[in-house]
Amino acid sequence: MAQKTVNLVLMGYGNVGKALVKILEEKTDHLRASYGLCPLLQAIFKSTGGLFPCAGLKMQDILEARSADLPLHPLWKLNLSLESVLRELEPGVLVECTPSNLKTGEPGLTHIRLALESGWHIVTANKGPLAVDFSGLREKASRNRLALKFSGAAAAALPALDVGLYSLAGAEVLAIEGILNGTTNFILTEMGKGRSYSEAVQKARARGIAEPDPASDVEGWDTAVKLLLIANAVMGLELQLADISVEGIVDLPAELIQRAGREGKSFKLLGRIRREQSGTTASVAPSIIDHSHPLFGVDGTAKGITYFTDTMGAVTITGGKSDPRGAAAALLKDIINIYRS
Amino acid sequence: MAQKTVNLVLMGYGNVGKALVKILEEKTDHLRASYGLCPLLQAIFKSTGGLFPCAGLKMQDILEARSADLPLHPLWKLNLSLESVLRELEPGVLVECTPSNLKTGEPGLTHIRLALESGWHIVTANKGPLAVDFSGLREKASRNRLALKFSGAAAAALPALDVGLYSLAGAEVLAIEGILNGTTNFILTEMGKGRSYSEAVQKARARGIAEPDPASDVEGWDTAVKLLLIANAVMGLELQLADISVEGIVDLPAELIQRAGREGKSFKLLGRIRREQSGTTASVAPSIIDHSHPLFGVDGTAKGITYFTDTMGAVTITGGKSDPRGAAAALLKDIINIYRS
Repeated sequence: MAQKTVNLVLMGYGNVGKALVKILEEKTDHLRASYGLCPLLQAIFKSTGGLFPCAGLKMQDILEARSADLPLHPLWKLNLSLESVLRELEPGVLVECTPSNLKTGEPGLTHIRLALESGWHIVTANKGPLAVDFSGLREKASRNRLALKFSGAAAAALPALDVGLYSLAGAEVLAIEGILNGTTNFILTEMGKGRSYSEAVQKARARGIAEPDPASDVEGWDTAVKLLLIANAVMGLELQLADISVEGIVDLPAELIQRAGREGKSFKLLGRIRREQSGTTASVAPSIIDHSHPLFGVDGTAKGITYFTDTMGAVTITGGKSDPRGAAAALLKDIINIYRS
Repeated sequence: MAQKTVNLVLMGYGNVGKALVKILEEKTDHLRASYGLCPLLQAIFKSTGGLFPCAGLKMQDILEARSADLPLHPLWKLNLSLESVLRELEPGVLVECTPSNLKTGEPGLTHIRLALESGWHIVTANKGPLAVDFSGLREKASRNRLALKFSGAAAAALPALDVGLYSLAGAEVLAIEGILNGTTNFILTEMGKGRSYSEAVQKARARGIAEPDPASDVEGWDTAVKLLLIANAVMGLELQLADISVEGIVDLPAELIQRAGREGKSFKLLGRIRREQSGTTASVAPSIIDHSHPLFGVDGTAKGITYFTDTMGAVTITGGKSDPRGAAAALLKDIINIYRS
């Protein structure tokens, strides 16, 4: 098989970035043998600077350091400029893993624009830039014939985007329903077992499933952004967050959820979008579904999405690891698929 | 968007072939607008001959005739030779929809080999040629840099192959479990409601779900072939049918299935493959699963498949229409994806 070396620049070195470096290191031989792909990690950036040795990074070295210690690395450069790095290298893939800011999209938005203007493909786990300027980025990528891949931002290891864009090609997607946030689904599942809302949140925090401040999850915004990204990409829409009616699960009475359970039903935070003659309606809201719904059995931190189509009926995907390793595997998948013939 | 005209030659004009022509006709504008794809149906073959007018077929005309009446068409040519048709045209896609013969692979095997040697991509709903000579066809396609796509043969509108090959790229598939045959799943679901095996088969026949002779379904062979195709493609194996231990559902006592139901479990005909240190084990067998299994809720004619992976956890796909239109939509999807950049 012909071999192709591909330069990677990694923006952000949190849990997902680190998991990606680890998978790249573990899978070096597999990627070469199965896909003829030799990814070369050329630079890693954090907010204060970056590492950019001349001949690629020794991943083993990097992995031995904690993320916080990266600035102590002998080759660390304070205020290293992304522009100069991109200019020096043969274009490859910019992997964007900096923290999401749903209001400004920064700093990811600047990184992605710069990279697209410099001929680099984009693989991102960062929702912010896409939430703020999906249309603009899509158009910039398309004009420059570059890939803009964001499985890692949409539902990570659950291949929602792939199925919507690739497996349903030629079918019309009439509606989408999804359980797109593992934290809220875990909380609802726990409440179904008899816990109160605050006990369930507490348990999710203790397990590392919920952030110390899980507002974006429990208020429904994380689900809304994922729904937006998936619907815009798959249904060719230009939805903004403001077009989605969003209701979360904060302080839901446990009794509601337990009653649904006693009736053999299930309480879920569903993202829903439906194309109707009068236009498109999009919402995120707590919903009761019964066993005939394809997402009925999706419990705990699991996620799932159903596409309702004209020619293929309903197609549902569930599962996919909800952790940094799963998200990193989704980034790697996107990188591989950019270069596959 | 740049437009590309693609020649199609359709082998076989049964339910699936006819549904494909109908979808192509309905979706002409959509395919052009969304994918820049203009499929031109140049010829249709049945066993005794074919239609091959000079400037493509008027699909509307064809659709008005019953399949059996095709040989009465004014342009029908008895013993039309596929070889001569392929030679006359700019290569495009040969769509193979003739009846499956799992022992000889014919007549599809000859069609596919000839087309690959003439520079044509292959999209097939016919399992026979793949069951008989998967390795040979894959190698021939790869040597000629041609696509060999067979969603329509593997699980039709359930995108089992796409997810395995595309969405799990970079992950290692450790095991696969699937409910891959809608007829047997319908029979088992009916038996769970209190019907005997023969009553359930009768109902499936009456609904047009089971063939008059459903042997290949109920004896497990249809499941085994689909498992073989999916596993060989996704796990890179070279399994033969003889490597799979196959047990069907013929004359299963209804009591077994109802007992599973009373215990909150579900009785399924599962295809299973597992990569172990000692080698690969593959089987088709009636199996009891509980609600923690991702395929638990897959009832009636629905199908489903779960991939167990190293980095992405378990990823499950369920649903997809189980009828000729669903299968035709899967063929169209494969055609589109061959030409997408």
